[in-house]
Amino acid sequence: MQTTRTTSSRLAKRTHYDEATIHPILDEALFCTISYAVDGQPFSLPMAFARRGNKLYIHGSVGSHFVREIQKGNPVCISVMLVDGLVLAKSAFSHSVNYRSVVIFSRAEIVTDEAERMEALVLITDHLIPGRWADLRPTTASEMRKTVVLAFDITEASAKVRTGGPNDEPEDLALPTWAGVIPMQTVRLAPEPAASSLETPLPDYL
Amino acid sequence: MQTTRTTSSRLAKRTHYDEATIHPILDEALFCTISYAVDGQPFSLPMAFARRGNKLYIHGSVGSHFVREIQKGNPVCISVMLVDGLVLAKSAFSHSVNYRSVVIFSRAEIVTDEAERMEALVLITDHLIPGRWADLRPTTASEMRKTVVLAFDITEASAKVRTGGPNDEPEDLALPTWAGVIPMQTVRLAPEPAASSLETPLPDYL
Repeated sequence: MQTTRTTSSRLAKRTHYDEATIHPILDEALFCTISYAVDGQPFSLPMAFARRGNKLYIHGSVGSHFVREIQKGNPVCISVMLVDGLVLAKSAFSHSVNYRSVVIFSRAEIVTDEAERMEALVLITDHLIPGRWADLRPTTASEMRKTVVLAFDITEASAKVRTGGPNDEPEDLALPTWAGVIPMQTVRLAPEPAASSLETPLPDYL
Repeated sequence: MQTTRTTSSRLAKRTHYDEATIHPILDEALFCTISYAVDGQPFSLPMAFARRGNKLYIHGSVGSHFVREIQKGNPVCISVMLVDGLVLAKSAFSHSVNYRSVVIFSRAEIVTDEAERMEALVLITDHLIPGRWADLRPTTASEMRKTVVLAFDITEASAKVRTGGPNDEPEDLALPTWAGVIPMQTVRLAPEPAASSLETPLPDYL
């Protein structure tokens, strides 16, 4: 949704306010950075998360100072960035990055409904490792008591997306320097079993 | 440096305050997230950067609202995260992530010395693409006028590092669930030339 806070001051053509752009970026990113402020001092931490509909969920320990601060419901900014490539132009000035980023303005709500708390944990686990939850023993009441689940409405959000090759100035195009894109990707390598799983077959979902 | 703000409330054994831990994380990460706050509302943006000694440099457009806000010298929080692996335990509760993160508390200083401004641009370009700067035409006076370079002292910083396999509860170890680590890596794929460089040989540094 476009608001004063989400309106971009730069490169407006790269900015998007629709869920069809924003939601897939949130679903592909595994971690977000959440910021809050106290007396003008911002604090940021990277966190695992998951999205369903217009809600973003995180979980944390009841003992975490960071969680205790944001669960007060103060304003937060949540940002996510996927890097797709480095864009090499003929001039330093025209170098760029292909990326997809999202910035959300919101406030935490503590999730108290036990079914929604459990659903959020399923979503966060399966966001990182699709199919994992169904393979795990049930969560215990003690584990649930130690866990805080927070939900954020993600209506006030914007995405920025850059794609394609370099945009060189016409007078630079004939320079002999190589220009183009170095695509970047985050990959999962071969799973490494723990000592407890040396003889356990790798599940299909991995 | 350990201060009240950098002291971790959780998992103190994973927290480090020494440059020997913090600097290599900053040098490996290509992007950081910078946050500032106005009237209690945090704003965050991912940015390219580079480090030299105890300074972190960013650059931006003189027209950027974000740059104009942080160049006022208000408190900022800069965070960086490298994800090394997903840690799959026998229980959902013991799942974790292998990561190396840094959080810095600082304030921007506008770099005005032309030599330091140019050095910062070299550092930022070569941080993303080592060896690139030497292959580029000189930056013009007009390009330099459109560019703001900001420096941040990074003395007040902490790193968090998790490595290794899952830490399962003893009573979970005999469960048949596969446990271990899925290593993650950010990779650069084969460079894709722009239309202007179809016949330009790929430079050695790429």
